[in-house]
Amino acid sequence: MKKAADAVVELDGMGLSLIEISHRSKEFVSIMETARSLTLDLLGLEDKGYQVLFLQGGASLQFLMVAYNLLENKGGYLNTGTWSSKAIKEANLLGQTEVIASSEDKGFNYIPKGYDIPKDLDYFHITSNNTIFGTQLWEFPETSVPLVCDMSSDIFSRQLDFSKFDLIYAGAQKNMGPAGATLVVIKESILGKVSRKIPSMLDYSVHLGKGSMFNTPPVFAVYTSMLTLQWLVNQGGIPSIEEINERKAKLLYSEIDLNPLFKGYAAKEDRSFMNATFTLTDDKLKDTFDAMWKDAGINGLNGHRSVGGYRASMYNALTLDSVGVLVDVMSDLERKA
Amino acid sequence: MKKAADAVVELDGMGLSLIEISHRSKEFVSIMETARSLTLDLLGLEDKGYQVLFLQGGASLQFLMVAYNLLENKGGYLNTGTWSSKAIKEANLLGQTEVIASSEDKGFNYIPKGYDIPKDLDYFHITSNNTIFGTQLWEFPETSVPLVCDMSSDIFSRQLDFSKFDLIYAGAQKNMGPAGATLVVIKESILGKVSRKIPSMLDYSVHLGKGSMFNTPPVFAVYTSMLTLQWLVNQGGIPSIEEINERKAKLLYSEIDLNPLFKGYAAKEDRSFMNATFTLTDDKLKDTFDAMWKDAGINGLNGHRSVGGYRASMYNALTLDSVGVLVDVMSDLERKA
Repeated sequence: MKKAADAVVELDGMGLSLIEISHRSKEFVSIMETARSLTLDLLGLEDKGYQVLFLQGGASLQFLMVAYNLLENKGGYLNTGTWSSKAIKEANLLGQTEVIASSEDKGFNYIPKGYDIPKDLDYFHITSNNTIFGTQLWEFPETSVPLVCDMSSDIFSRQLDFSKFDLIYAGAQKNMGPAGATLVVIKESILGKVSRKIPSMLDYSVHLGKGSMFNTPPVFAVYTSMLTLQWLVNQGGIPSIEEINERKAKLLYSEIDLNPLFKGYAAKEDRSFMNATFTLTDDKLKDTFDAMWKDAGINGLNGHRSVGGYRASMYNALTLDSVGVLVDVMSDLERKA
Repeated sequence: MKKAADAVVELDGMGLSLIEISHRSKEFVSIMETARSLTLDLLGLEDKGYQVLFLQGGASLQFLMVAYNLLENKGGYLNTGTWSSKAIKEANLLGQTEVIASSEDKGFNYIPKGYDIPKDLDYFHITSNNTIFGTQLWEFPETSVPLVCDMSSDIFSRQLDFSKFDLIYAGAQKNMGPAGATLVVIKESILGKVSRKIPSMLDYSVHLGKGSMFNTPPVFAVYTSMLTLQWLVNQGGIPSIEEINERKAKLLYSEIDLNPLFKGYAAKEDRSFMNATFTLTDDKLKDTFDAMWKDAGINGLNGHRSVGGYRASMYNALTLDSVGVLVDVMSDLERKA
């Protein structure tokens, strides 16, 4: 953040602020290129037919863009919660969708498994991590149709064979940078197969043709994302951060399971390493617990209104020590109660 | 920029960076509310049925959103150059458009006048300032149909009766803030009149219903825009900045007209106060002139490739002194040549 702040005052001794320079300047073109190539590098996707875009509009606009660019006859969806449902809703405006499997029957507290993916789908869309319900996909479907994945809340957090995906998108604001940029990693070969005319701003091919500079890009958000990606490379890349994320999650879930005052919300095998959802077993302890974690300096532990209880978000930027603070508060509560 | 940079490190003593805080936090909600109310205040549109949004996607996405939200039977357009043409192109995907008047016949070097606006249009769309050709609208059409204006490159630069417009949009990056936020000022009463289903992210009503927080907003760009608007209020608002903009433009155009080595591109009565386009009368002086203005520390004076020659952009942030530097270089060239 210090480096991002410095660049807002003056970018690398240029005499101009990051937010003053032209997005056509060689300085910004180089920032964009670096951010794009760091992405491919970190995901292990160099020279595999993938291209990277930094767009605007968040994952919410991707819900629509995916359908605009890929939906001809039918799009398939795995419905694992709020974000998947929104993606389905937007795609329905453009054509036929089919929910191949859903965990709505149990309040989205698990990830559906053992479903068949029809071969005639234009694509199959999944959400790899569900922030609100605290579930995460640990096994990914094998399919011959293009696999589209909303990784907004867990990209760059764990090692995966990213070449299994044909299109990955992610709002920057969880593991990558500030709000305002959306990462899209796309296998170019899946494009150009729909008959509709696509509005320019919603057309991946248009953005690809202009090197992610079809219109003025969100300069600050791209720059800060680039800094975060460089930091991640310096940390040892995804393997290193994954190890820390695993330790953080194990520490917290172990407390949830061993402390009789708490109960996890998500099915154990589908628990998210990014967002842990849990409730008190005795609601009468709520005021005491709430006062304790606030006193400990913890922010935003309340669960989403559709689930209730608590939600601890443990994105890449959160340290193991911070998780330790929460776990200590939970243990303290057990001792006091 | 210093204040924006400080906020990237820590926002107002919160212990958190601007780019770490939740967009649902009371701190950011207050930033968004302030930015929205400063906008109405500066434009003189309080209590006149207007609402303000800060969206993503730039003016380029507005080309599409205007048509999605307003185009039922036919949209009318004034074609004054590249940006208008792009707006027309996107609207054509959704329905019928009619170019009511165009200055394409003379390379967009003037603003068409004396045209009639049919009463059966869903809306009439104009571009108030044309960055590439250096023209600006100084008289606005009177019409009973909703008037939509792309003010990306001259909003907050001059006094206008803004209540004549039903929808104003502007990418932030010229007179308002960093790239990544788009201002939309809209009279709510023009909405809800099309029969199509509008994708959520492209639906003004959806964004209005959520107070411009339908999805994660571009936090940094909104904050920086708010700072710029506060700065503008402290300068005395639009009347003060207009006076400076007028002095800057008169200084430069006077040199263009009096110096025999230069010729203005745009028709005199339609000249833009934001972007002055001009050429050398003798191309052989090009290398000398280019070396001189670069030596003087001037950046980006080359005209757009579709016009050639030179273009001096004089947005709100540029000082009169900076224009003076260019004028001195032009006079020097005359003395030397």
